[in-house]
Amino acid sequence: MRILKTKALFPLLTLCGVATLGQWATAAEGMWTLHNLPMDRMQAVGFTPSQEWIDNARLASVRLNDGGSGSFVSPDGLLLSNHHVAMGQLSAVSSPEKDYVKNGFFARQAEEELPCKDLEVNILVSMENVTARVQGAVKEGATTEEAGEQRKAERSLIEKESKDATGLRSNVVELYQGGEYWLYRYKQFTDVRLVMAPEHQAAFFGGDLDNFTYPRHDSDFAFFRVYENGQPYKSEHYFPWSQIGLKQNELAFVTGHPGSTERLHTLAQLQTIRDLINPFAVDGLVRMRDTLEAYGKQGSEQERQREANLRSVTNSLKVYEGRVAAMKNPALMEAKVKEEKDLRDAVERNPAWRAKYGQAWTQIEETQKRLAARSNEYYYRRLGGVISGGGLANLAKTIVTYVEQAAKPNEKRWPEFRDSSLDSLRQKLFSTAPIYPGMEKKLLAEALKIALKKLGPQDPFIVAALAGRTPEETAQVAISGTKLLDAEYRKQLVAGGLETVKASEDPLIQLAVKLTPFIDEMRTWYEKCIEAAEVAGKTLIAQARFAVYGKTQYPDATFTLRLSYGKAAGYEQGTTLVPYKTTFGGLFDRAKSFDYKPPYDLPAKIMAARGKIDMDTPLNFVTTNDIIGGNSGSPVINKEGELVGLIFDGNIDSLMGDFLFDETKNRAVAVHSAAILEALTKIYDMGGLAAALTQGAIRRIQD
Amino acid sequence: MRILKTKALFPLLTLCGVATLGQWATAAEGMWTLHNLPMDRMQAVGFTPSQEWIDNARLASVRLNDGGSGSFVSPDGLLLSNHHVAMGQLSAVSSPEKDYVKNGFFARQAEEELPCKDLEVNILVSMENVTARVQGAVKEGATTEEAGEQRKAERSLIEKESKDATGLRSNVVELYQGGEYWLYRYKQFTDVRLVMAPEHQAAFFGGDLDNFTYPRHDSDFAFFRVYENGQPYKSEHYFPWSQIGLKQNELAFVTGHPGSTERLHTLAQLQTIRDLINPFAVDGLVRMRDTLEAYGKQGSEQERQREANLRSVTNSLKVYEGRVAAMKNPALMEAKVKEEKDLRDAVERNPAWRAKYGQAWTQIEETQKRLAARSNEYYYRRLGGVISGGGLANLAKTIVTYVEQAAKPNEKRWPEFRDSSLDSLRQKLFSTAPIYPGMEKKLLAEALKIALKKLGPQDPFIVAALAGRTPEETAQVAISGTKLLDAEYRKQLVAGGLETVKASEDPLIQLAVKLTPFIDEMRTWYEKCIEAAEVAGKTLIAQARFAVYGKTQYPDATFTLRLSYGKAAGYEQGTTLVPYKTTFGGLFDRAKSFDYKPPYDLPAKIMAARGKIDMDTPLNFVTTNDIIGGNSGSPVINKEGELVGLIFDGNIDSLMGDFLFDETKNRAVAVHSAAILEALTKIYDMGGLAAALTQGAIRRIQD
Repeated sequence: MRILKTKALFPLLTLCGVATLGQWATAAEGMWTLHNLPMDRMQAVGFTPSQEWIDNARLASVRLNDGGSGSFVSPDGLLLSNHHVAMGQLSAVSSPEKDYVKNGFFARQAEEELPCKDLEVNILVSMENVTARVQGAVKEGATTEEAGEQRKAERSLIEKESKDATGLRSNVVELYQGGEYWLYRYKQFTDVRLVMAPEHQAAFFGGDLDNFTYPRHDSDFAFFRVYENGQPYKSEHYFPWSQIGLKQNELAFVTGHPGSTERLHTLAQLQTIRDLINPFAVDGLVRMRDTLEAYGKQGSEQERQREANLRSVTNSLKVYEGRVAAMKNPALMEAKVKEEKDLRDAVERNPAWRAKYGQAWTQIEETQKRLAARSNEYYYRRLGGVISGGGLANLAKTIVTYVEQAAKPNEKRWPEFRDSSLDSLRQKLFSTAPIYPGMEKKLLAEALKIALKKLGPQDPFIVAALAGRTPEETAQVAISGTKLLDAEYRKQLVAGGLETVKASEDPLIQLAVKLTPFIDEMRTWYEKCIEAAEVAGKTLIAQARFAVYGKTQYPDATFTLRLSYGKAAGYEQGTTLVPYKTTFGGLFDRAKSFDYKPPYDLPAKIMAARGKIDMDTPLNFVTTNDIIGGNSGSPVINKEGELVGLIFDGNIDSLMGDFLFDETKNRAVAVHSAAILEALTKIYDMGGLAAALTQGAIRRIQD
Repeated sequence: MRILKTKALFPLLTLCGVATLGQWATAAEGMWTLHNLPMDRMQAVGFTPSQEWIDNARLASVRLNDGGSGSFVSPDGLLLSNHHVAMGQLSAVSSPEKDYVKNGFFARQAEEELPCKDLEVNILVSMENVTARVQGAVKEGATTEEAGEQRKAERSLIEKESKDATGLRSNVVELYQGGEYWLYRYKQFTDVRLVMAPEHQAAFFGGDLDNFTYPRHDSDFAFFRVYENGQPYKSEHYFPWSQIGLKQNELAFVTGHPGSTERLHTLAQLQTIRDLINPFAVDGLVRMRDTLEAYGKQGSEQERQREANLRSVTNSLKVYEGRVAAMKNPALMEAKVKEEKDLRDAVERNPAWRAKYGQAWTQIEETQKRLAARSNEYYYRRLGGVISGGGLANLAKTIVTYVEQAAKPNEKRWPEFRDSSLDSLRQKLFSTAPIYPGMEKKLLAEALKIALKKLGPQDPFIVAALAGRTPEETAQVAISGTKLLDAEYRKQLVAGGLETVKASEDPLIQLAVKLTPFIDEMRTWYEKCIEAAEVAGKTLIAQARFAVYGKTQYPDATFTLRLSYGKAAGYEQGTTLVPYKTTFGGLFDRAKSFDYKPPYDLPAKIMAARGKIDMDTPLNFVTTNDIIGGNSGSPVINKEGELVGLIFDGNIDSLMGDFLFDETKNRAVAVHSAAILEALTKIYDMGGLAAALTQGAIRRIQD
């Protein structure tokens, strides 16, 4: 499953979706905020959570800064998430000599736990409705654009006041397309250490082929420990470990941070995605994949270096291909046509509604035309985007923008450069995680090459970027000569501010300085001319939906904490059934069925433990919970609030999740809690860790 | 997998197909006659069989009279086929006290082997091209209809002469839509005894859900022994047993008796199937399924009685539903449109071809209109058809027709009543296999009910059938009062001939006497007005194809011996791979994944043997061989002529096999030779049988 990238450099690519069909969400549909749980619906399926249950679910759940979710599973700071969420950290601390990605990582003593430089953990400690204040900041007679600015400024102010008053990370989040604003305060931890991760091959058995599929056989888990003041954090709120897991049809709850959904998109927006965005994106991803694969063929060290990057790209490619297929599905588009027609007809029948909301669809349609007219520039006049210029080029660009933005007042900055976000941003900018210049050079050269091809040699962006050289030469000069590999040099540049950066003779910084105006112009144009009008239109449509269908709906995902309810359940596929769970026996069967050929080979530790493992132990299972990218690492809990599983993927049908939720097919895929215990005790010699988990459970029961 | 019904009571339902796309068959496509193997193509994939190899493949392969295939696997008459081919026999010899279907059957001594009353085995001992003689029988100036009669008469004559001269079963088979006629002579065995069959649940694990799917985990095998003169038949030709089986991509050969394909159908015929035949058939099958299910709910004995029948019906329903889906696939119809256009264009461009073949398509189109006009009568004015009036009603009808037909000269009879077929027919008519009147009553009542509804009370057929009574009363009277359950009574009727039958006071025979004229009129009309014209048109099209594309093609399947070459190979499904084999570990995984809920429960013997079974032993595997219903029980052999597997099904994509062959998706599903040895020795305590198989192999190697 794709993990969410917190700051997409290419917001156009935030995927779209069709609205919920009809008036009512289907049974398990919905990513509900914890201040507005659908108690009546949950009661209808057999469970009314107490406030204590809800609070524990919230406070035991965490958000990870690099786009995933996690949860506390012991009273002393043990944190469970996915191996693929930990992958970036594992990769960063690995070297050819100590390849933790390949071999796994196992700390059996506290002192062996491995600090994760870039990892940040956030707990949502309070939620406050600030809608009235944000909306109240809009002055009488303001234009749409001015209103947007005024709301933005007020949100920044609220965030700053809160941060100053409480010291907590404070974000004003927009829900229901601006129907509501909430101040979320997070307790933040930056001392996070890796406790245990299985081998990459165990976590990602079946590789990119089996990714997004089910039945599945992946041990995609990792354990961290959160520290506070140099001591394990006393996590009062955690999920006790269930050794049994869920029976078929038993209720399942998932807390976590779904990244984004766009279930309110109009037909015009869907057409843009189908005809414009998808082809751009697939083309870019294919180029990036090919570049990384070619680089990996240079040798085993290059292969190791490009692994995490390649995995992320092929994963995204699979998502896009699934969505391309979904967009070509006539049933989906027909459903969307009908849904839009029904809503618009209802609006038209009521004069008041017609006056207020009737123009929203046309308004959005106009933005789509404007976008199409500049799409080529928008896509290729940037080092970022899907075909990334590489991590190093992005660092250079971010440093240039950082010093420019930091010179402005807080409320005038882009959101990711506001005070409330700077800690996280700095942690990322100054990370000492290794950077591979060979790979960076290839990625930058490819990004420049395609930009040259698509924009032509006369385009001002190309003229500025190449200055008469070839893309390869440009990349060679910029990457070979840069000192940005040194985190200290990055710190100096940021500390020196705008003047220092502009005066820098670093060739990559110089390139970034030349290109940043083009890139930022595109962003500003997009935000002002496209996004703002889209948001205005979508807000009207959201209001129209409230008017026509009532207000018992969930907001689109926004990488904020949500709870989903569902159940453990298999499904039909073709003419047969897919079971709700798989077993360790199935893992060995699938490996042997492919004669252990990669990606169906098994790590030595698993082969060695074969005689000890109880083959009937459930390994993975599926539930009807409504999840999306960003939910990776989410706990699956039962009615008792016990941890029964760990979300790590969705099935192939879940790739439509941005568009719509289909309970008959859409499944969340999880690692079973019993599988993790079995693996810890029988495969990885991590009995101590297993005991810590089950003791937590016992203590809880004795409470 | 559906086993072929030798005499479809509803020939309209013989399913259709689109022609091979383009000029050349794809690599593994083709069901080749053994007198015209594509040696150049086989050489191209790496194997040129010797004449000895080909002869052994032919003489070790057998045709079973109830629609399946099989092969000799030892020098002393041991015959391997599918459990589902043996199912009818198992069901016939079972009773509530000795339920061999449920518990399996295991003869460990020769005297324990169980005679199969209705089973007949045929070996194809000679093949002779008689095209010139059959075509030469058509007199100068004969009309199409007369020519058909003259060919029919000549074929009957050839068969009779051959039978008289050799004592061998002799059939003149039509190939290439009448492009060739061959005299096939079979050595016939009627003393066939069951040696071993596993439990139904082992053979059919996953039930109707997993039927036609893959990955698969079925022990769908059974062993018989063929006797000659009361002694085990000395089967000089047999396939030595391979304990290893095939590696991925290793060449695989399948000999057997594919029932029918219609890869030459025109667009007009395909439209008839899509719009007329499929809806009729699905409706009929659904009714029959519902009737049998309702009957089975009356008690466990009723459930046992209806089991084989229900399985056959649900199986057929799955085939139809797959085909309905295939017909709705625009790509398939587009391919067919293009293929027909290409051929017709080529014909049009050549004046000689245009004159000879140009009208064929229109001619066939006209027949489709005639068929549509009478389809309701044709479908419902019969006790037979898909919604069968039941086995007993069919017996009554067959007896009436038998005595009528037997009164005519041999060459004037319908093919299944000619002398060459009478032995087989009598064996079926006089079988003492149990008949369940309760179930028969329900089936007959349902058939009459739907006929009444569709034809209306004034239809002469309905008037004759019901004579003022309700369908239920009619069925009650006919079935309760009949003596046809007694095989001796049936013999008396047939021996007595037409007069005896007409004078019979048996109510079911009386009903059959009344209805037979209607049923036969429909058959005659169909054969003369539809089929003959279709055949004439198809023959022209086949000739046009020979003219345009050359003559290196295989004929459509005709339930005669064919050889297919292919390889063991998995395939892509969704975004991932399906492995080329499964293992015993996968069987236990799937059972446990469904918590052993039927149809995923495991028989006691398998559960008990769990600790002994080597879980890595391959259980099922797939090959690219081109097979179809009738290939059930076919051996899979390797280049050395060793038995490596046993065909028992096709995957879901193979349901298009009547229409076209798609090598990327279409797979034959087989039981692995190693799985059978593992099951015999570790699960079923049949070490003696296993030794006989492997000793055969050793002896062979020592030769």
